Amino acid sequence: MPILLDPARAPTLARLLQETDTTGLDWRLDPAGAGERAIAGIAALEHAGAQELAFIANPRYQDQLAGAQAGAVIVTDAVARAHREAGGNAVLVVCADPYLMYARVGLWFERQRRDTPPGQVHPSAVIAADAVLDPTASVGPLAVIEPGARIGAGAVIGAGCMIGRGCQIGPDSLLHPRVTLYAGVRVGARAVIHSGAVLGADGFGFAPDSTRAKGAWTRIPQFGGVCIGDDVDIGANTTIDRGALDDTVIGNGVKLDNQIMIAHNCQVGDHTAMAACVGIAGSTTIGSRCMIAGAAMIGGHLRIGDDVFVSGATAVFSNLEKPGRYTGIFPGTEHREWERNAVAVRHLADLARRVKALEKKG
Amino acid sequence: MPILLDPARAPTLARLLQETDTTGLDWRLDPAGAGERAIAGIAALEHAGAQELAFIANPRYQDQLAGAQAGAVIVTDAVARAHREAGGNAVLVVCADPYLMYARVGLWFERQRRDTPPGQVHPSAVIAADAVLDPTASVGPLAVIEPGARIGAGAVIGAGCMIGRGCQIGPDSLLHPRVTLYAGVRVGARAVIHSGAVLGADGFGFAPDSTRAKGAWTRIPQFGGVCIGDDVDIGANTTIDRGALDDTVIGNGVKLDNQIMIAHNCQVGDHTAMAACVGIAGSTTIGSRCMIAGAAMIGGHLRIGDDVFVSGATAVFSNLEKPGRYTGIFPGTEHREWERNAVAVRHLADLARRVKALEKKG
Amino acid sequence: MPILLDPARAPTLARLLQETDTTGLDWRLDPAGAGERAIAGIAALEHAGAQELAFIANPRYQDQLAGAQAGAVIVTDAVARAHREAGGNAVLVVCADPYLMYARVGLWFERQRRDTPPGQVHPSAVIAADAVLDPTASVGPLAVIEPGARIGAGAVIGAGCMIGRGCQIGPDSLLHPRVTLYAGVRVGARAVIHSGAVLGADGFGFAPDSTRAKGAWTRIPQFGGVCIGDDVDIGANTTIDRGALDDTVIGNGVKLDNQIMIAHNCQVGDHTAMAACVGIAGSTTIGSRCMIAGAAMIGGHLRIGDDVFVSGATAVFSNLEKPGRYTGIFPGTEHREWERNAVAVRHLADLARRVKALEKKG
Repeated sequence: MPILLDPARAPTLARLLQETDTTGLDWRLDPAGAGERAIAGIAALEHAGAQELAFIANPRYQDQLAGAQAGAVIVTDAVARAHREAGGNAVLVVCADPYLMYARVGLWFERQRRDTPPGQVHPSAVIAADAVLDPTASVGPLAVIEPGARIGAGAVIGAGCMIGRGCQIGPDSLLHPRVTLYAGVRVGARAVIHSGAVLGADGFGFAPDSTRAKGAWTRIPQFGGVCIGDDVDIGANTTIDRGALDDTVIGNGVKLDNQIMIAHNCQVGDHTAMAACVGIAGSTTIGSRCMIAGAAMIGGHLRIGDDVFVSGATAVFSNLEKPGRYTGIFPGTEHREWERNAVAVRHLADLARRVKALEKKG
Repeated sequence: MPILLDPARAPTLARLLQETDTTGLDWRLDPAGAGERAIAGIAALEHAGAQELAFIANPRYQDQLAGAQAGAVIVTDAVARAHREAGGNAVLVVCADPYLMYARVGLWFERQRRDTPPGQVHPSAVIAADAVLDPTASVGPLAVIEPGARIGAGAVIGAGCMIGRGCQIGPDSLLHPRVTLYAGVRVGARAVIHSGAVLGADGFGFAPDSTRAKGAWTRIPQFGGVCIGDDVDIGANTTIDRGALDDTVIGNGVKLDNQIMIAHNCQVGDHTAMAACVGIAGSTTIGSRCMIAGAAMIGGHLRIGDDVFVSGATAVFSNLEKPGRYTGIFPGTEHREWERNAVAVRHLADLARRVKALEKKG
Repeated sequence: MPILLDPARAPTLARLLQETDTTGLDWRLDPAGAGERAIAGIAALEHAGAQELAFIANPRYQDQLAGAQAGAVIVTDAVARAHREAGGNAVLVVCADPYLMYARVGLWFERQRRDTPPGQVHPSAVIAADAVLDPTASVGPLAVIEPGARIGAGAVIGAGCMIGRGCQIGPDSLLHPRVTLYAGVRVGARAVIHSGAVLGADGFGFAPDSTRAKGAWTRIPQFGGVCIGDDVDIGANTTIDRGALDDTVIGNGVKLDNQIMIAHNCQVGDHTAMAACVGIAGSTTIGSRCMIAGAAMIGGHLRIGDDVFVSGATAVFSNLEKPGRYTGIFPGTEHREWERNAVAVRHLADLARRVKALEKKG
């Protein structure tokens, strides 16, 4: 378990909850007077000590509450009642959605730990004279900010980031070290972009050009941009290419894990989440609130509707308009069993034909 | 639509076409006297305004020409004739291959927009005393160029690039920001390499070494190089490993999208194109003019012939000598349907046996 | 073939073998007096010249020994005896494991070629006042080392690396240029980490948060760390995320190729090797001495036992406790054949049902 705060700087439970952003969440402390204890961190229930806050997201684990050492535990009302009926005396933060409450408290701790003071620009950064930085924006060592870029209030540009000509970065966005934004990329408010991400590289477009050589290609210049909405998270080494003529567009609240590839002219709807290693080929439109599980691959020029769930490692080569879950994976088994079945797959059309013949005969 | 040029700086259509590299292309303006209008950019036909050039690559869309507002439209001779016969009066650039002509015109606009003036070396770059830079080469801020590297005429080394000892970069090559070339990597003329690409990292080679511990490995040093031909494009976060003893070789005109992995000692033939997320395992040879679609994975020590097309998300574990298209994907469907079929796949060899038995009996 | 050493600086064979780390290996020179010849490099047997050392790992190739020009060849005792019986007079280094011996000799040459002198810190690096660098550690140009980081003896931090607050890097570890370590990442001794690798980015964790919008997410802060054992190799553009509360843990001797993604809270056992493009979803535990072939994808919250081999491009969504090889790939074929079989796969459950009906009837 990490130590989140020096215990000497730990807030009281009451102050912690008061300073946590609980917008939209109802919560109460039980017993109400237990707010004076100091809380220095967050931990899993089984490891949490007297200065740590824990949570139970799944009522199945409510029995663990009896022996818990945690300073306080976030639970649902039902878990709280069962605990009190069983004579339990744990300090409880009662809330309809303990996991979300835990996330919100976690964000409070994260803010305390943030390294970069607002408005600090490291002298080794190379910043164009006409770039416009809000006075509360920070820039890390050896970052490069090119002419005409605009960095919003409270934004943090990490060490070694490359911010191209005319980029716009919204307020309170955090670029971790070593992010590249090509010219003209626009990022909304409160983005989190991780190291190695590349936004705005050229889309992959080439015209066959036999005037040069048999099979040769001529590059199609990519004049479109990349437009990222508000509250977007982008993982390490993820790439989002600029459009050919129009923009590649990532909606509000989209969450992208590491090593995702989004090709030129894709559009991703609000609050869609993609796990690591997903690839989306060019000009595909993905709806809102989709979940694309790890290593799924989606072909180009497709339409994926709202609320679609694509299973991990599934390749999609047709439109998926209807909400629901879609899957296509060869089931993994012991190698010898796979070998036998794989041979049979190679003759499956023939097998189907033979079954038809048997049926006719029969 | 992006604004490509300040309209005040826009060329006339005649000048634009004259300055465009039209090597190998026949074209004519129709009507011939229409070259005086200013063209400030390129746009899709349905959005193009009076100062923009558009194109029709597919004759299916020729009806859109009637209502188009574009300053001029690149079309085939057949489309031009049909338009005139129907009484249309659009300004036309007539060419056998409108898409290629559009690409060439686009490259003209791209050159106007290029940021880096030739011969500009940013004072924050760290350049070894004995590196040899052509006087017309440019180096961006915070780039590192190590001893013995040679940078050709007109080449651009982007901000934050790391150019290792003894690398060679050919004339007019463009390295976008934050590219890494390990020692001794050779890149030909007119390369375009995108941010996050890593050329020349060690190939993945280890000898089992039980002298250290059960199952332990000892690294095989990788002494080969990476040799990239002319006119090669390499996408963001793509990696090409150095060879063990011989070089990893990428032919002329090869086009690689983002997040591709090419392992040590691979050889890729001229004009082969690979879409994003492709992986090629070690010592595999790929022919010329192949197309490897997105997320295809090709095993090691294989031979892929010329003119082979590997479909997206297909895993290849045998030689593909014959030209043609190869595919191997479990077709994606609604999850429940997949579940039923996947269970059946697990018993497919058994099913085939049972059909055989029925046939014998019958 | 690369030239490894200026022949004028080449060691004698005897000195080369004496200075090679042959811990655990028995070897002898045959003839014993042949150690005076100079060896300037390593080469494949068919190309090796009089100043180069070659090896035969596979006895199948022992016939090549007759015509070889190599200065010396590493062979097994059996190959040596066969060669002498056939009257061969090659200079032989006889060893039970020629491939391992070759790796060890290769490491000797690699050490001679290493660029960075111990203890050299480039003046352009930005190093926090309270970072602790061993006097023999080296730091390349434009690297950033943040407060509280500790760099061990003989470690090399490449150009442009970003070493976060409080990181620890063990002795003799080598970080190639442009590696990112987020705050608090611990790396053991003798690591090799390649360019573009990102260790310690946030794990991908979000709580559904409908208080903001339908389908919205709130980020779960990731407070855990990343802990890398001794003798670990990490490839280019590989990402290893920090844990949510506990650490992500990579055991001793683990070998990771390029573009691998290891999600938060994974644990990887000692000496496990993963080829390129592998993805491991969150909280999965992988045993010791596993081999995960290229582009395999392993789901989250799984247990993979010791000595498991997962085939390339295989997706794993269940525990694999038993040692052995596991596979799940749709076999690739010519596209038309695939199409026919893929259609049949979509109706496979139905086919199975029909065969059952035939059997009943029969």
